[in-house]
Amino acid sequence: VQIACDTTKLGASRLTGKDAPSQPDTEATLDELRARIKSAMAYLDGFSAKDFEGAATRVVSTPRWEGRVMTGEDYFLEHVTPNFFFHAAHAYAILRHNGVNLGKKDYLGSLTLRAP
Amino acid sequence: VQIACDTTKLGASRLTGKDAPSQPDTEATLDELRARIKSAMAYLDGFSAKDFEGAATRVVSTPRWEGRVMTGEDYFLEHVTPNFFFHAAHAYAILRHNGVNLGKKDYLGSLTLRAP
Repeated sequence: VQIACDTTKLGASRLTGKDAPSQPDTEATLDELRARIKSAMAYLDGFSAKDFEGAATRVVSTPRWEGRVMTGEDYFLEHVTPNFFFHAAHAYAILRHNGVNLGKKDYLGSLTLRAP
Repeated sequence: VQIACDTTKLGASRLTGKDAPSQPDTEATLDELRARIKSAMAYLDGFSAKDFEGAATRVVSTPRWEGRVMTGEDYFLEHVTPNFFFHAAHAYAILRHNGVNLGKKDYLGSLTLRAP
């Protein structure tokens, strides 16, 4: 949950050049994890479409890449998106493995279904 | 692996209105699963950007939605993308749980890193 949240936070931060708040990863209860998720969503809510103008061609790097860089477009498609869902799916899998009564609808959340 | 492949195949099919080949899900070996992945990639390679013109506002439905529909945009963001990564991450998790020596780099594949 911590890494899933950070993936969205750092993704938006690096694609827009805006600073992201540092968080110490000390959550130890479900309520604290829920608060962490709310904090990430609140951070994301602070962005507008305008903030992402030029993001596709922005030069992005992370400490792990040893000086190499990605374009914002590659970073979003190859790194942010797969990593976010990787950690979300594993949080789901760990809960389910340990007996929590979860189904895929809990993972997907409510779909925007409409009348035809 | 079968569902991950079908998610991409049916996603592209529903977003463009083009028929997707039906597959019987009889793969029983790793080589057969690799062939299934290649088949899905070959199907996706047959699409051009032009095929997806208007996809965001296309009306999409699946047999499970009992007559309700989604816009192509909602379908891609809320259904295709999360489901694809859900099944890819779980295939990874099942392999790793059973002792295959996998790391996240195997999940992400090679990133398009560039010189700065």
